[in-house]
Amino acid sequence: MTEMNGAESLVRTMLASDVDVCFTNPGTSEMHFVAALDHVPGMRSVLALFEGVATGAADGYWRMARKPASTLLHLGPGLANGLANLHNAKKAGSGILNIVGEHALPHLELDAPLTSDIEGIARPMSHWVETSTSAADVGADAARAVQAAMTAPGQVATLILPGDTAWTDGGIVAGPLAPPDPGAIDPARMDAAAAALDGPDSLLLLGGTALTEDNLIRAARIAARTGCHLLSEWSNARMERGAGRVAIGKVPYPIEQALEALKSYRRIVLIGAREPIGFFAYPGKPARLTRPDAVFVPLAGAGDDIDAALDGLVQETGAAAARPLGLHDRAETPAPSGPLNPDSIAAALVATLPENAIVIDEAITTGRSFFPATFGAAPVSWLNNCGGSIGYGLPCAIGAAIACPDRKVAALIGDGSAMYTVQALWTMAREGLDVTTLIFANHSYRILRGELTNVGVQNPGPRAIDMLSLDRPRLGWTDMARSMGVTAERVEDAAALTRAMQNGFDTPGPCLIEVSL
Amino acid sequence: MTEMNGAESLVRTMLASDVDVCFTNPGTSEMHFVAALDHVPGMRSVLALFEGVATGAADGYWRMARKPASTLLHLGPGLANGLANLHNAKKAGSGILNIVGEHALPHLELDAPLTSDIEGIARPMSHWVETSTSAADVGADAARAVQAAMTAPGQVATLILPGDTAWTDGGIVAGPLAPPDPGAIDPARMDAAAAALDGPDSLLLLGGTALTEDNLIRAARIAARTGCHLLSEWSNARMERGAGRVAIGKVPYPIEQALEALKSYRRIVLIGAREPIGFFAYPGKPARLTRPDAVFVPLAGAGDDIDAALDGLVQETGAAAARPLGLHDRAETPAPSGPLNPDSIAAALVATLPENAIVIDEAITTGRSFFPATFGAAPVSWLNNCGGSIGYGLPCAIGAAIACPDRKVAALIGDGSAMYTVQALWTMAREGLDVTTLIFANHSYRILRGELTNVGVQNPGPRAIDMLSLDRPRLGWTDMARSMGVTAERVEDAAALTRAMQNGFDTPGPCLIEVSL
Repeated sequence: MTEMNGAESLVRTMLASDVDVCFTNPGTSEMHFVAALDHVPGMRSVLALFEGVATGAADGYWRMARKPASTLLHLGPGLANGLANLHNAKKAGSGILNIVGEHALPHLELDAPLTSDIEGIARPMSHWVETSTSAADVGADAARAVQAAMTAPGQVATLILPGDTAWTDGGIVAGPLAPPDPGAIDPARMDAAAAALDGPDSLLLLGGTALTEDNLIRAARIAARTGCHLLSEWSNARMERGAGRVAIGKVPYPIEQALEALKSYRRIVLIGAREPIGFFAYPGKPARLTRPDAVFVPLAGAGDDIDAALDGLVQETGAAAARPLGLHDRAETPAPSGPLNPDSIAAALVATLPENAIVIDEAITTGRSFFPATFGAAPVSWLNNCGGSIGYGLPCAIGAAIACPDRKVAALIGDGSAMYTVQALWTMAREGLDVTTLIFANHSYRILRGELTNVGVQNPGPRAIDMLSLDRPRLGWTDMARSMGVTAERVEDAAALTRAMQNGFDTPGPCLIEVSL
Repeated sequence: MTEMNGAESLVRTMLASDVDVCFTNPGTSEMHFVAALDHVPGMRSVLALFEGVATGAADGYWRMARKPASTLLHLGPGLANGLANLHNAKKAGSGILNIVGEHALPHLELDAPLTSDIEGIARPMSHWVETSTSAADVGADAARAVQAAMTAPGQVATLILPGDTAWTDGGIVAGPLAPPDPGAIDPARMDAAAAALDGPDSLLLLGGTALTEDNLIRAARIAARTGCHLLSEWSNARMERGAGRVAIGKVPYPIEQALEALKSYRRIVLIGAREPIGFFAYPGKPARLTRPDAVFVPLAGAGDDIDAALDGLVQETGAAAARPLGLHDRAETPAPSGPLNPDSIAAALVATLPENAIVIDEAITTGRSFFPATFGAAPVSWLNNCGGSIGYGLPCAIGAAIACPDRKVAALIGDGSAMYTVQALWTMAREGLDVTTLIFANHSYRILRGELTNVGVQNPGPRAIDMLSLDRPRLGWTDMARSMGVTAERVEDAAALTRAMQNGFDTPGPCLIEVSL
């Protein structure tokens, strides 16, 4: 029997644990892992030109595949470049296995240029961090890392692989380890939740996997039976919505609107959701968005068995036979024409989104009204940024497209957001992914203009406004896309947008549409 | 007297400490700082579309201005996006003041989406990390942060600014604090160093600020007097070189070449340099690159008084009157023609680099031979990546250009490297910076092809090679540059390159030349 090195045992262990996609940006210290990909068939390796693309893609992959992808990152700085999207993934409850190369262990004391505290860099954005210390351990370490990544709702696991543990013989493939069972829902909590949901001053607030199609039906039966209202959190990792599905609103982002939307609820049951709070703090505004006397019943957190919680609550409220409230019809809106604005763009989405599409929503200001305006679109999966670090959208689209090769992906991205991880376009082209990207070109960090006012800055001067303006020079999105092999066009009115989107969804491979605002 | 808030006291304190450039990518939590820029004249704010551009620019700024710039970053993820270039800055000994916004302190316990462990994220790449806890403290904290950044050789200082400390009145401007004196050079060490330098089996190894024009003259006098050899480290934050200056070689990057270059030295004096070690570890190759019996005399580390060390050593060796060895003549090479290759590109550099230009060298494989081939170029400052995290070059060029508006900047960048922080091109256009960027388009992570062999992987297969290839699709650099407002052309031969470079240096504002390889 031939000996295998640590790197090969790692790849084989990952495959045994059903991790078969790797988003990579390797360097010297990862060359044995790269070489192992030649010996071991079955791992789809997707190259990224920037590590934030790799980690964001792994986030999108988890949300759609419900299993972890891996990333391959080069030492501390490579991991550092991926941290912002790991932050977003962590907040979304996405499971990811990061493989981070490290110098050979005896090399560390020499403090070579690329030496850094990799565990320290990993920890703020990881639930699980370990460094393998011998080739014989790599397989077992990797199996535990995948187990950590699979732990509900999904966790970020970072395994650090010193060069010598990769290249030394003696690797041992480890079998898969089951993630811990989330355990049963507390019956006392279930009683309290069922009692709390009674009439329109009670709210069932949903998040995470409470927003699957089946769970929304369960919630809609409970609403029909108890008279409670339904809402989701502002940012949702994935919500199933559109025609034929339960139309459920969101807690608004602006503080005043959120206070208004929540002011009548005295009893709030949480399933996969947390107490509604402000995204940011603002001088003189409250951070908790519900009535001071509101009573919360946290029935199931993100890591609990959310399907069981909703199913149990259906039984407990006697809602099993209730007709679900709020199933939305397909909107029969005509294709829009005239100027481009949030309403006409939303109408173009309703007109063109293909059935079963995946919508990646990072259209910060332009897209704020898309959500209510698209209840009657074709049934789609709708993905939000849950960590607030912009630059998640284009990478997330890559991961979603690779997880679901039979589905079309629509990436709705603000121009400011798109620039953080614009390198993602190249990977879309390389992999021929069916992603139609809309760039909303308002030439500014538009949200910050509002935020200046929100934090109490009246009449900002030219220097402040200049720091939020992206129009000197204007970004040329069609040139940008073409430079990375993505076909592109710029549209100036809603009819052209609708045609371009239709064309994008009908044509294999990626395209980009600059939506001129 | 009007009260000022914490943000305004911060800006005024920074100006009082002579920090008057801020590379920014702000968000909601930094809006009061942005607003303060309107009230307080004197801070040049330079917007970046990605935080790694801001931190890399601050690195380049320090290297040329010898004083810190600040960055303004949005919460933990914004800092995370800047970490890789902070790593490079830390390894280069560049002083930087990072201002990182944080949620208002009472908001932290709510664990909002953008909440993260900012101090934990900062620590691996910072020498100094603190969080201000009240508006009254912000000024004093900032003065200490600048002091830390100024501490020799230059340090990364990260000040975290919670929103409420920025927006609350009661800010107090603090005066500048002097950095600690590095102290005198140990006379016993000086004696030992002078005794060690004797004949061609002794080496004076230089790094950091030992590579200024004056210090190189001192070293060249010592070499003339003692017969010792001179070398610099492989990566140097800044070296003054070219015609009329001391031509000094570097310890080579490849292990075998480094061993060969260093094999005859029995006594090695270190000034601003460290013991030569391998950039990476390779199976079966040594990591220490000098003879096992070599004796090291560390006379002055990066944080010591390097000018005094070299001056003292001149005195101690009786070299004050010696004629410095190795002053290089201006090369009278004709402008190159014919195919593009490292030699013809180097000849184009010799032919066109303007006097007093600043050369940013991130041409990993293409550029490896540029160094010896450009001893006879016009006198220039030559900057290397000291931390090994690629993506430093374009941002560093921004900082260098802003520090030295009267000098031309040449950025020599591999295509793989350029993509990590490609957003820098937009800031160059916005600020109208005199940067001529050469992109060496070899359509691969070429260095990794060699590294695969170096780590012992023979005959890599198609999957491994595919992970190192950037040619599917090829990046279109002229489209890329134009998309961000930078004029660009593609050249196919050395004569065209020479013309394009000449044109680039003669024309105000940035340009990009795709060097087709």
